[in-house]
Amino acid sequence: MNPLTCLVLVCPQNPGNIGAVARAMMNMALSDLRLVLPQCDPLSRESLDRAREATPIVRTAKLFINIDDAVADCHRVYGTSRKARSASPDFVTPRVAAKLIYSQPKIKSALIFGPEDRGLNNEEIQKCDVVIDIPSAPAFPSLNLSHAVMVVLYELFVFESPTITTKNKQRKIATAKDKEGFYEHLREALLKINYLDANNPERIMRTMRNIFGRAELDIREVDILRGVCRQILNRTVS
Amino acid sequence: MNPLTCLVLVCPQNPGNIGAVARAMMNMALSDLRLVLPQCDPLSRESLDRAREATPIVRTAKLFINIDDAVADCHRVYGTSRKARSASPDFVTPRVAAKLIYSQPKIKSALIFGPEDRGLNNEEIQKCDVVIDIPSAPAFPSLNLSHAVMVVLYELFVFESPTITTKNKQRKIATAKDKEGFYEHLREALLKINYLDANNPERIMRTMRNIFGRAELDIREVDILRGVCRQILNRTVS
Repeated sequence: MNPLTCLVLVCPQNPGNIGAVARAMMNMALSDLRLVLPQCDPLSRESLDRAREATPIVRTAKLFINIDDAVADCHRVYGTSRKARSASPDFVTPRVAAKLIYSQPKIKSALIFGPEDRGLNNEEIQKCDVVIDIPSAPAFPSLNLSHAVMVVLYELFVFESPTITTKNKQRKIATAKDKEGFYEHLREALLKINYLDANNPERIMRTMRNIFGRAELDIREVDILRGVCRQILNRTVS
Repeated sequence: MNPLTCLVLVCPQNPGNIGAVARAMMNMALSDLRLVLPQCDPLSRESLDRAREATPIVRTAKLFINIDDAVADCHRVYGTSRKARSASPDFVTPRVAAKLIYSQPKIKSALIFGPEDRGLNNEEIQKCDVVIDIPSAPAFPSLNLSHAVMVVLYELFVFESPTITTKNKQRKIATAKDKEGFYEHLREALLKINYLDANNPERIMRTMRNIFGRAELDIREVDILRGVCRQILNRTVS
């Protein structure tokens, strides 16, 4: 997460949402929360309950009386709007916004979210350099405030650390040679228990190759499967 | 959004989260909500308040007494976990999961989320073909339940389905119930040939679930594999 990014809630009305936003921020490694004229007590029980371990973010949130003051030290201001205005070139998706923010790592960016009932109004939108539009279903496009925050912060977080492969990096994928050794062993075991048709043993073996080929076996798994073959050969009668 | 995808909450504890999940589902064009042993009233005021326009999703949610029943009609089960567990199926990011789901538009997928306090436990994780790990800050990785749902559904929603033409369109993918029947049969056969450690049979069975979960078995393949199990049981000397 860009350490220079802050998050601004404009006139939040629901204390639970303030806490939930703080939790989402902590989950996504952001800590600078700013509140413009909150319409509820940010330190209420409901807010702190929803914040969980992120209560320090709520307790250190800064209060402002208007957006101008809240973003005075920021170089670039990103607003969010729930209304799809695809005709406007100024609207970007959260993913594009993440790209924009990371393309300028030296500048301080602010993310602004409007109140629950109306979102940012036109005057507030005018203060933004870029407006983010979160894709959603036309039938019910209005996201919960903390959900909208979560989506945008998630895109920022994964932009920085795009882990597009599985986390099990320690897996050593089996080579073709490893697999051929296993298939030979499997064929021997299936012959022993009379499961392969002596006239056409390859029919079943092709299916086995399809199954295990799709599974992308690692070396440890090949060892385990060969252990099964060995045990079949040891423990069965033909 | 893939119209065939359903969402399963396992033992949800907080009615507000159930409502918030329903709202996130409606925002992201999903409607099939299933609840396994909810620990609170899904139709409580708090739940319906948080659901907003999505109350029909809460009211039509189906109740189940266990995960097996909840996903019995699904071909592929995606779990979510907040922590990487080496013994679990491969972990993928929400983006990769979206790609997987859209690459198989003809099959029915289930998304499973565990309870707020503990997430899915190891036994529940084992029922999943793929486990999704949402990237988050190591300092506080635990997302609110509805936030986790939002992130995964958002990735599904924004994913643009690649036009992948599968070669084997006639393959009938096995359901979770089909696969559980096979795993039970396999376990029996491996016990008979003394391949499973009587003190810890699940260690090897987890590996087997990982392998065959990745392989995306079809019904014919499950039959063939169960034929092997049957033959092992018939031919073993104990």
